[in-house]
Amino acid sequence: MKRVIFPGTFDPIHNGHIDIAKRAARLFDEMIVAVYDRPLKNLLFSPLERLELAKKAFSGQNNIKVTLFHGLTVDYCKEIGAEVIVRGLRVFSDFELEFRMALANHRLAPDIEVIALITNEDHSFISGSSVKEIASLGGDVSSMVPEHVAMALYEHFREAEANGSAEDINVSLRD
Amino acid sequence: MKRVIFPGTFDPIHNGHIDIAKRAARLFDEMIVAVYDRPLKNLLFSPLERLELAKKAFSGQNNIKVTLFHGLTVDYCKEIGAEVIVRGLRVFSDFELEFRMALANHRLAPDIEVIALITNEDHSFISGSSVKEIASLGGDVSSMVPEHVAMALYEHFREAEANGSAEDINVSLRD
Amino acid sequence: MKRVIFPGTFDPIHNGHIDIAKRAARLFDEMIVAVYDRPLKNLLFSPLERLELAKKAFSGQNNIKVTLFHGLTVDYCKEIGAEVIVRGLRVFSDFELEFRMALANHRLAPDIEVIALITNEDHSFISGSSVKEIASLGGDVSSMVPEHVAMALYEHFREAEANGSAEDINVSLRD
Amino acid sequence: MKRVIFPGTFDPIHNGHIDIAKRAARLFDEMIVAVYDRPLKNLLFSPLERLELAKKAFSGQNNIKVTLFHGLTVDYCKEIGAEVIVRGLRVFSDFELEFRMALANHRLAPDIEVIALITNEDHSFISGSSVKEIASLGGDVSSMVPEHVAMALYEHFREAEANGSAEDINVSLRD
Amino acid sequence: MKRVIFPGTFDPIHNGHIDIAKRAARLFDEMIVAVYDRPLKNLLFSPLERLELAKKAFSGQNNIKVTLFHGLTVDYCKEIGAEVIVRGLRVFSDFELEFRMALANHRLAPDIEVIALITNEDHSFISGSSVKEIASLGGDVSSMVPEHVAMALYEHFREAEANGSAEDINVSLRD
Amino acid sequence: MKRVIFPGTFDPIHNGHIDIAKRAARLFDEMIVAVYDRPLKNLLFSPLERLELAKKAFSGQNNIKVTLFHGLTVDYCKEIGAEVIVRGLRVFSDFELEFRMALANHRLAPDIEVIALITNEDHSFISGSSVKEIASLGGDVSSMVPEHVAMALYEHFREAEANGSAEDINVSLRD
Repeated sequence: MKRVIFPGTFDPIHNGHIDIAKRAARLFDEMIVAVYDRPLKNLLFSPLERLELAKKAFSGQNNIKVTLFHGLTVDYCKEIGAEVIVRGLRVFSDFELEFRMALANHRLAPDIEVIALITNEDHSFISGSSVKEIASLGGDVSSMVPEHVAMALYEHFREAEANGSAEDINVSLRD
Repeated sequence: MKRVIFPGTFDPIHNGHIDIAKRAARLFDEMIVAVYDRPLKNLLFSPLERLELAKKAFSGQNNIKVTLFHGLTVDYCKEIGAEVIVRGLRVFSDFELEFRMALANHRLAPDIEVIALITNEDHSFISGSSVKEIASLGGDVSSMVPEHVAMALYEHFREAEANGSAEDINVSLRD
Repeated sequence: MKRVIFPGTFDPIHNGHIDIAKRAARLFDEMIVAVYDRPLKNLLFSPLERLELAKKAFSGQNNIKVTLFHGLTVDYCKEIGAEVIVRGLRVFSDFELEFRMALANHRLAPDIEVIALITNEDHSFISGSSVKEIASLGGDVSSMVPEHVAMALYEHFREAEANGSAEDINVSLRD
Repeated sequence: MKRVIFPGTFDPIHNGHIDIAKRAARLFDEMIVAVYDRPLKNLLFSPLERLELAKKAFSGQNNIKVTLFHGLTVDYCKEIGAEVIVRGLRVFSDFELEFRMALANHRLAPDIEVIALITNEDHSFISGSSVKEIASLGGDVSSMVPEHVAMALYEHFREAEANGSAEDINVSLRD
Repeated sequence: MKRVIFPGTFDPIHNGHIDIAKRAARLFDEMIVAVYDRPLKNLLFSPLERLELAKKAFSGQNNIKVTLFHGLTVDYCKEIGAEVIVRGLRVFSDFELEFRMALANHRLAPDIEVIALITNEDHSFISGSSVKEIASLGGDVSSMVPEHVAMALYEHFREAEANGSAEDINVSLRD
Repeated sequence: MKRVIFPGTFDPIHNGHIDIAKRAARLFDEMIVAVYDRPLKNLLFSPLERLELAKKAFSGQNNIKVTLFHGLTVDYCKEIGAEVIVRGLRVFSDFELEFRMALANHRLAPDIEVIALITNEDHSFISGSSVKEIASLGGDVSSMVPEHVAMALYEHFREAEANGSAEDINVSLRD
């Protein structure tokens, strides 16, 4: 049996992630969508919120499980017996990051393979940060995330505005 | 009449921005230089300061207006009747960001066009952050920004040093 | 009146080209789709064939004209009074080529502007060479080119096979 | 049973190819190394020579088979029941080509998946063309290809020189 | 006599830095490894700690000196009589940053040359941030940094954990 | 004494090459501009013509010599006692090629260093092929090459036209 892992912060999970996970799940016996469990400061949702949003996105998918993890990804792979790390490559991914991760992981654990699937062109411009930016400014993200994620995003920003704690997550106009 | 918009944080406006705005203004009837109005934490100047520096840079340009805006760029376009968003592409732009913005804007508002002008080689290394870094370290930015912007930068850093509030904006030596 | 030019070899014209030309034509008064008229050795169709395929693709578009040209693009611009050269940027364009063309054109003719439109994600993987490769191998290109271009491609490869003159245009498996 | 395909011209097969094929073969039940069978003019070895060099490189690997194919890769996949196309991504791959192939293949055959493995850093600078260039100039390629391939390369260039038919395949000094 | 400078934050110094510095030191008479002396907030080690770690890494190297500096790199070059700034280019460096620095430095001080050495493939995935991330998660960095740097990293994270002040420096799972 | 080599086809030598060679010559004792001596089919000028054009460009430069060479660059380095290969990096260089060359050279001859200088922005769009393309179409290349090279280019294309042997070297309109 081949078990594979798709690690990420998933803040929040979006249609690009879901497409990659489902396509990879067809190739292997079991797919673990692994949500990094630290409350990193630049993330919008808590680890548990990110876990719940991801779980709901894959409900009904028999061979996809969603878990929380911490520590090195390769250590978690060994712990759960996963042999392959799956990554999605967008046409304009941060290739530097992807290659550095893959080569660092290879040095840390040569037996664990990294495979990349190429994101379909429909999802190529979607990222966690663009989804958050658009939602924070009141834009329509319904073609980019599942409905329950869109609801969670709007609720988050509505509350933040009510509390006067609205983060400024607009990044696209830099310089 | 074709009205176009050139959105940005303009922190501060520099010769690369001014070149793009003037060249685009020759192609269309009216150019709106739109300064994003949030006081984002990584910006040096306040929204009003950024507006004033930009206004002065285009004084005497009949078909260029400078305004403040907030919210989604495409929503502001609709509000003021602009059909085109102008972007400047430097030879080493953040293409990922530019493409994601353009494709996201296209999905949010298919009728609004994004066009990119290519920055002249004289300005290709100039960015808001390099200008701020050089000025903060006492370097000469007079070939990179208009005189009034150079003055504002030096004044800002002089005050910051006097107050002991000098930001560390040096980024170029990373790693 | 603003006249703009969209130059290329158009060997053959495809949906990515057509999208760029129509979108640019909405921004200006007149769009000239200018087909380079040399019989370059690596092209499949003759200049006249490329002209006819392009003309048919824009029939019924009032402000789009299709012409043949030779020589420097900037010289042709001056000859016909075009102030702007339009280029389509694919997410994985040959940016080097585009920037070099733009900067070289700027040095040769500083008054002529180059603007780039970003290709929609639906057409981002389409190029003249991928269309030719797929058609030569019997693949379905009906979602990538207009019907009359698909017909011309199949006819070309059918004849070439009958004559024993089939070019080997497969490039995607290199290395 | 999952059968996967690793298509290429393999002119000639080198250590980077062999590493990718063996690593992918560990993830799936059967790996078909598929050698494109056209005598393309810029290739050094004939289809049969390329097949034989590749076969020898994988002798003793139980679940790796080497075959010749022609036509569209996705059509060959359907013919042999392969669900996955494997590609090797070098740190400085031709990403444009890889993405265009993947997206074009996805449009032609949505059920066939493309996965990319990242080439180890030891092989990252090796390509068919660099191997051929170095061997043609008398350089030592023994750390880049299996011994039988090195022998075939030297023999090829020795014969070519004897015949006065030495191709000029040096490309690295361009411009 | 040619004196050259290799400036950086060196937070901490790693094998990629050391390789570049030693190789450049063979080409010139004296190499100054210049540690930027500001306590930037995103750095792990203090200026003095970074200086000490770097000094120890080059002990016994006759023509390599390690110093602290502040201000513009080109001003420091003039102060110490260095004519050349050395940079290491990784295969996936931040080319934008490197080119902008080089061109900005050239405008500020046309007599000071910037030269880049290409990092060996063994060190190509190593960066200060990947080293810190891996060490913070308990991974083995002994092949990426000298032993005394590995010790300093582990000690730092042990203390931080004991104090409850552990920084979250995991960046590789973004999006 | 440090001798360095700047290898290339120099077809023809242009202002970008000359700038790199002169800047590198200031850093070392002797600079050898080494012209590859094969009559490659895609080159415009013969080896001797390329040698003469380069020699004239550096006349009066005491520590710059121009030579012809063939074979592996690292073998020629050993033959003449050069320890360093100099390359010019344009902002949009073919980084893949540069890195592959550097890493392959490092494996073939670990003692020979490759250093890259960054081309000034004034020359960043100039390449041998753009110069040839512009000259072949009658454009003005006087700001891109020395006068004697401009003359040689025009003479070449005038003769070629008279003979009906004009090459089609226009590449910029591809696709």
